[in-house]
Amino acid sequence: MRILLTGSAGFVGSHLVERFLHEGHSVIGVDNYLSGQPANTALFEHHPRFRFVQADVSLGIPAQQEPLDWVMHFASPASPPHYQQHPIATLMVGAQGTQHSLELARAHGARFFLASTSEVYGDPLVHPQPESYWGHVNPNGLRSCYDEAKRYAEAITMAYHRHHGVDTRIIRIFNTYGPRMRADDGRVITNFLHQALRGEALTVYGDGSQTRSFQYIDDLVEGIVRLMGTPYHEPVNLGNPDEFTMLELVRVVQEVLGRPLQIIHEAMPQDDPRQRQPDISRALELLGWRPAVALRDGLRLTLEQVRGAQVISQERRPSPHPA
Amino acid sequence: MRILLTGSAGFVGSHLVERFLHEGHSVIGVDNYLSGQPANTALFEHHPRFRFVQADVSLGIPAQQEPLDWVMHFASPASPPHYQQHPIATLMVGAQGTQHSLELARAHGARFFLASTSEVYGDPLVHPQPESYWGHVNPNGLRSCYDEAKRYAEAITMAYHRHHGVDTRIIRIFNTYGPRMRADDGRVITNFLHQALRGEALTVYGDGSQTRSFQYIDDLVEGIVRLMGTPYHEPVNLGNPDEFTMLELVRVVQEVLGRPLQIIHEAMPQDDPRQRQPDISRALELLGWRPAVALRDGLRLTLEQVRGAQVISQERRPSPHPA
Repeated sequence: MRILLTGSAGFVGSHLVERFLHEGHSVIGVDNYLSGQPANTALFEHHPRFRFVQADVSLGIPAQQEPLDWVMHFASPASPPHYQQHPIATLMVGAQGTQHSLELARAHGARFFLASTSEVYGDPLVHPQPESYWGHVNPNGLRSCYDEAKRYAEAITMAYHRHHGVDTRIIRIFNTYGPRMRADDGRVITNFLHQALRGEALTVYGDGSQTRSFQYIDDLVEGIVRLMGTPYHEPVNLGNPDEFTMLELVRVVQEVLGRPLQIIHEAMPQDDPRQRQPDISRALELLGWRPAVALRDGLRLTLEQVRGAQVISQERRPSPHPA
Repeated sequence: MRILLTGSAGFVGSHLVERFLHEGHSVIGVDNYLSGQPANTALFEHHPRFRFVQADVSLGIPAQQEPLDWVMHFASPASPPHYQQHPIATLMVGAQGTQHSLELARAHGARFFLASTSEVYGDPLVHPQPESYWGHVNPNGLRSCYDEAKRYAEAITMAYHRHHGVDTRIIRIFNTYGPRMRADDGRVITNFLHQALRGEALTVYGDGSQTRSFQYIDDLVEGIVRLMGTPYHEPVNLGNPDEFTMLELVRVVQEVLGRPLQIIHEAMPQDDPRQRQPDISRALELLGWRPAVALRDGLRLTLEQVRGAQVISQERRPSPHPA
């Protein structure tokens, strides 16, 4: 198959490229490096079945001469510090970016895959969240540039499906972690690992009783691949339902690192969800999918890469006293 | 003041043009006639302070040489039959249309006014709805092309306000009726009046116990004008909090017409809200505004225009037996 993937230099995007190439597919990666990283393109740049196009998909996707089987729209800033720094670009990649991707799929008769998010549930009043839950989102708060952009992206995807007959898929990705997350991602696992490796105290917002579920990247990728093979158009949650409070997460990080860690408390950011946990019955029933990687195992794999990256970045740092 | 108004040929838009011209302002009306009506442009076409530009604001707004004081974005299909017939155009006017309007305001240093809607509350779980209520909206149902487009419009308006310092206003318009609504508007007051005048039974969806509030157009226009003079950036509800069930509305229509009417029941459409009622405390406190026109008075004024329009349309109809 030939797959065009927007956001190919992002964390999730780069793991998808890796998997698709491994399975023998051809991949056209598209990214503008707003939050994606050139290093993630460099991983595949010499691969004969990989081609990269640098473009801002909100402004348009360069026409493709070759036929396409899939257009997969994964481009978007996804961590709160990134999307709050770029609120308008985030809104645009949800609206214009999704529409350009849908139009490309439509023009090629390709299937379309939307990466939506558990953020469409906002600060949910129902636990765990099934796909039928409509969510609890502040339409004009500080997070709305991301949450509403993704809700809009779902709405326009379903409109193209219903109105133009495009064969679409929608996943709602819950918190996902793993190798190649940006060091400045700003989400809790990245923060904790980097703070711990720098010997700093771990920052816990509020009293640390808010919960999160953490999905290892390989589980997400497996779910995506399975859904591609299943003609199902309503949204599907992909996440790990194991819930951890922030304080429990601190304990697992301590265990993986093998040493005690200090914590400091800071005030909760505005609109920060208290709790979010996927109901994955639909994915289980439809795809026979459930997460397979336990948090401590996933954290070990992630820590290994983060340590390696820190060593590389220290080696690259110019010496303060050059010979 | 010089005001550019998108959706100038729509129901609400045309009443705003009328009011602004009456107050001595200059108005540039923009409409693509997707749901607006050329007859609403014709009302003002000879007015020296009115100028009309036919354009699809989702694709762009022609550059304006003259300075602008206000850009007011009222363009959008707003009735369920219209937006469900044009789901993608509706999504686009909420995203690209709002953004083009915001960019125009920004380029001119003009203030920006967004017409949002009570539909951002969806099928609310809180009654009445204050502006702080986040709503209960299906992000990918049949109505999502309108609801999510407007939620997105609010999000991008606040993003331009916070990020680019644009001086913005947002109103959430609840059910509004009055002269110059389209005969095929599809909403209950128009349906009832036209069915009654044609001697047909009135269609009631479900058992008729769902409630609506009905705001007369002049009340809405007054609220808009007052908010323009008030530097307040959060959304403001404008609606009439008097609630009527569909069956009560039937009784008021009977009273205004002075004769009994038949009703027929049909199944409720998907995602149709059971109840929606504005909490107008904010408008009252901020603007000293509350609706002044009672339902039976507003219905009399509307009926008068609908009757006149029916007479005109019968007079214009070619005779079946020309001389």
